[in-house]
Amino acid sequence: MHKRNNPIGVFDSGVGGLTVVRALMERLPHENIIYFGDTARVPYGVKSVETIRQFTGEIVDFLLAQNVKMLNIACKTMAAVASDVVKERAGHLPVLDVIEAGAKAAVDASVSKTIGVIATPTTINSNAYARRIASLDASIRVFSQPCPLFVPLVEEGWLDHPVTRLTTQEYLKPVLAEQVDTLVLGCTHYPLLKPLLQEVAGDKVTLVDSAVTTASQTAHLLRELALANPGDHPTPPVYRYVVTDVPLRFTTIGERFLGRSLGRVEVV
Amino acid sequence: MHKRNNPIGVFDSGVGGLTVVRALMERLPHENIIYFGDTARVPYGVKSVETIRQFTGEIVDFLLAQNVKMLNIACKTMAAVASDVVKERAGHLPVLDVIEAGAKAAVDASVSKTIGVIATPTTINSNAYARRIASLDASIRVFSQPCPLFVPLVEEGWLDHPVTRLTTQEYLKPVLAEQVDTLVLGCTHYPLLKPLLQEVAGDKVTLVDSAVTTASQTAHLLRELALANPGDHPTPPVYRYVVTDVPLRFTTIGERFLGRSLGRVEVV
Repeated sequence: MHKRNNPIGVFDSGVGGLTVVRALMERLPHENIIYFGDTARVPYGVKSVETIRQFTGEIVDFLLAQNVKMLNIACKTMAAVASDVVKERAGHLPVLDVIEAGAKAAVDASVSKTIGVIATPTTINSNAYARRIASLDASIRVFSQPCPLFVPLVEEGWLDHPVTRLTTQEYLKPVLAEQVDTLVLGCTHYPLLKPLLQEVAGDKVTLVDSAVTTASQTAHLLRELALANPGDHPTPPVYRYVVTDVPLRFTTIGERFLGRSLGRVEVV
Repeated sequence: MHKRNNPIGVFDSGVGGLTVVRALMERLPHENIIYFGDTARVPYGVKSVETIRQFTGEIVDFLLAQNVKMLNIACKTMAAVASDVVKERAGHLPVLDVIEAGAKAAVDASVSKTIGVIATPTTINSNAYARRIASLDASIRVFSQPCPLFVPLVEEGWLDHPVTRLTTQEYLKPVLAEQVDTLVLGCTHYPLLKPLLQEVAGDKVTLVDSAVTTASQTAHLLRELALANPGDHPTPPVYRYVVTDVPLRFTTIGERFLGRSLGRVEVV
């Protein structure tokens, strides 16, 4: 089998990375995809850096054994504190991560050179977005806001609930006070809050959805490296979902992220 | 050393069980206590039953190796789905759990024989409270409500925030509509929301704080089994805090639960 037919490996600490899978399916309908969600050990955002790096290494080893042709780090926490671990183990395979993708898209979008970043506490504390944005354009000012309640609110399904609206207003207040013109949604869960975030932030603020930007950068990279699947097979692409545990409501939440039926889920 | 001087072992999936430790310190000021929080693998509430049972067994083995004189299961999820694992491994040692303690206190408190239970989705789905209450008094009606947002709200420190108030009103509405006269706070985090819960529920509803009821049942059990520490030592009691990972903000959150300084935290 030619390497172009090998799957894209996408991984996350839980179900959130399915928003990246969804964006990849829409952008690259011929690609095979294998998704790994470490649901037994989610969430990573509250763990120590050493633990996160160890878990990340284990996941990468698993995906390499499945012959992936590239790796997509869908978890902001892993991208923030363990992307070197992934690159080292991946060797020659291309690696993309959502922080890099989001930072690049935000720099391209910002006119006023004032960018807001919302994410989990660990991602914000890692300073990864601010550092990557600064490395692309040192003149840009970045204002960061940790939003620890957004993940549980999304998982509760309260996407347009008064509680979520009030929480959003509270979290965005200090960022909007800085007159940002671009807001990076720095967590895989946040795209599901996009309509509400846009409403609270106002029309003048551009939201950067990292799932969508990751998918378009993946398309660009595969084309450049001649690794894109030409889609000349009679069979539809294969989507595999591998998790370390099947928690309660996994299918319900997963399908909300994926925007379609999950089918069979493998547990390792 | 006499067995009476051995510590009480208290364990939870994370920091929440420190509310039980706090209640024990107040009720039993002479007792040595060792607390185990599985912070590397928290939260258990979203994991499968098999995984929870395996993790529980590992924690019990660790505490038995520390010569505890009794075990206190502070985690509702473990109490709900793995209390048999604990009792089997503990052998002759007494085991108390917060579900048993809460169920008993609620049955004693209810006059109208209509009890509400609020807890995490896993605890509610396990039906553990309803079953234990029914085994104590089959004529009591139980109304259960999962409250997945309370834990993250407490950990955010929004104990009296408009968002928490609105969330509480939403969660309690169906339970209060059933005219319950007693409400069991079925999660170690919830005692920190007691003032708000009492306000929303109204004065006629008795709140059952499982940390406090666990402490008083522990006192009763130790006296009965002649295992209470007489407190005739010149040195103050020893409190040990053992965790599997030291997450961000652990000390801040832990001390909020404990109501005092944590001192040294051991990582295993």
